[in-house]
Amino acid sequence: MCQLLGMNCNTPTDIVFSFEGFRRRGGLTDHHVDGFGIGFFEQKGIRLFHDDKPSAGSPVADLIKAYQIKSENVIAHIRKATSGQTSLANTHPFVREMWGEYWLFAHNGHLSGFQPAQGRFYRPVGNTDSERAFCFILESLRSRFDDRPDTETLFAEVAALVRRVRAHGLFNFILSNGDMMFAHASTLLHYIVRKAPFGEAHLLDDDIAVDFAAVTTPDDRVAVIATLPLTANETWHQLACDELVLFRDGAILLRDTPDSPRYLSQEEGLAIARAVGASH
Amino acid sequence: MCQLLGMNCNTPTDIVFSFEGFRRRGGLTDHHVDGFGIGFFEQKGIRLFHDDKPSAGSPVADLIKAYQIKSENVIAHIRKATSGQTSLANTHPFVREMWGEYWLFAHNGHLSGFQPAQGRFYRPVGNTDSERAFCFILESLRSRFDDRPDTETLFAEVAALVRRVRAHGLFNFILSNGDMMFAHASTLLHYIVRKAPFGEAHLLDDDIAVDFAAVTTPDDRVAVIATLPLTANETWHQLACDELVLFRDGAILLRDTPDSPRYLSQEEGLAIARAVGASH
Repeated sequence: MCQLLGMNCNTPTDIVFSFEGFRRRGGLTDHHVDGFGIGFFEQKGIRLFHDDKPSAGSPVADLIKAYQIKSENVIAHIRKATSGQTSLANTHPFVREMWGEYWLFAHNGHLSGFQPAQGRFYRPVGNTDSERAFCFILESLRSRFDDRPDTETLFAEVAALVRRVRAHGLFNFILSNGDMMFAHASTLLHYIVRKAPFGEAHLLDDDIAVDFAAVTTPDDRVAVIATLPLTANETWHQLACDELVLFRDGAILLRDTPDSPRYLSQEEGLAIARAVGASH
Repeated sequence: MCQLLGMNCNTPTDIVFSFEGFRRRGGLTDHHVDGFGIGFFEQKGIRLFHDDKPSAGSPVADLIKAYQIKSENVIAHIRKATSGQTSLANTHPFVREMWGEYWLFAHNGHLSGFQPAQGRFYRPVGNTDSERAFCFILESLRSRFDDRPDTETLFAEVAALVRRVRAHGLFNFILSNGDMMFAHASTLLHYIVRKAPFGEAHLLDDDIAVDFAAVTTPDDRVAVIATLPLTANETWHQLACDELVLFRDGAILLRDTPDSPRYLSQEEGLAIARAVGASH
């Protein structure tokens, strides 16, 4: 099992506070020690950091803390490999260019028997089910659309593709093109939208607090998405099982919710992940 | 004008010595202060670091020094923008996936009126002539070959494509898939192949020396490619104008040399780059 972290904002924001709690789960407060990755969009460009060292002690993660990169869209992933090799080619987030934009993708879960035909536009480099799923989604989208369609059409198409993939197992993921951010839950995924009036937040994984009122303007809006809540004194919302949500400018723009939404407890969600040997 | 650095080896090697001299040209010993980038292959995976700060003082470059990443193929680029904006999307090296492999590309030069048709497989994200040229080469290769052809066929095809691009101006570049490394000179590009017996080398840009005999085995072979030589006491070879060379395992495997090779002096090469306003 692994954990996901995403951030989607209406103004460039640094993710250091959330990332400091998140990275401690890579070796200190939890056991996700088989590498990590984080990708920042900066306008159309990306900064991508991958490391095969545990995030809690990684010099790359130290740099991210020191550098305080501001970004409107960030995706991070810490890995606990229960099967499959640890290698850089298998480290999330994965990146591809589609329609003249970079797309980043990170996955938590396990897909059984998911072997789509070799793509014409996109092929995996490593050997994870995650990268196969990412390439399958892009391949399907790119084959159907020569240019990026309007957002509603794109969302409906992604939702249809996700239904096909999740039939193969656990498929919690975050996907972004630097403007919008898709988040899908099979089991566990939470989010919070921070906006004015901003308050103080305390990390769950460290004795650190931040007063967001001191570092924001009243117009700022920041959505943070994480496998498990990162703060102790705020209300995080859980995505329903099989729910797909699209964030833009730090708010939910579209959602595809099952007719009968189900919510797993943290214990249930983690138990399912362990039972199927979720590896990513 | 900018500068290029590449390394192709038969065993994973750290590039810290060469990079330490190279990065000083980004603000200390030369004026290439508009950002830098470096990409390391690690088996099939890549680590990619981009920064818009000058390499001489960049915390990202400090991390690379501290981390001593070992790689068989590395491409780095420091930028002096004479036209065009400084942005992350325009920072070399650029990366794309082709045939299930990552490809990295960095360019030094300037192409006039190079506006290939929009690609089906690859499109630029930023607005540099460099990324357009990279996408053009990949698009042409991918359109012609569904899978990577044998090396001789690939080399001949790349050589033919390069002739078309360089008709538009200065096209010094380095291109790699993590196994082989193409290097092409329009004006200035030098290389050295280090192998046993190894000796001591002194940087041109800093008072640093290394005794390669102490950090290598007798079987190691390392090719270093750079716009201008990096060391004072070794013999660097210059690529002829319009010469394309393919390195693998730290040695030259194939080369496409003009019938009447010409070699520019450093002064001539730099003067031409200045005259055409080479921006990358």
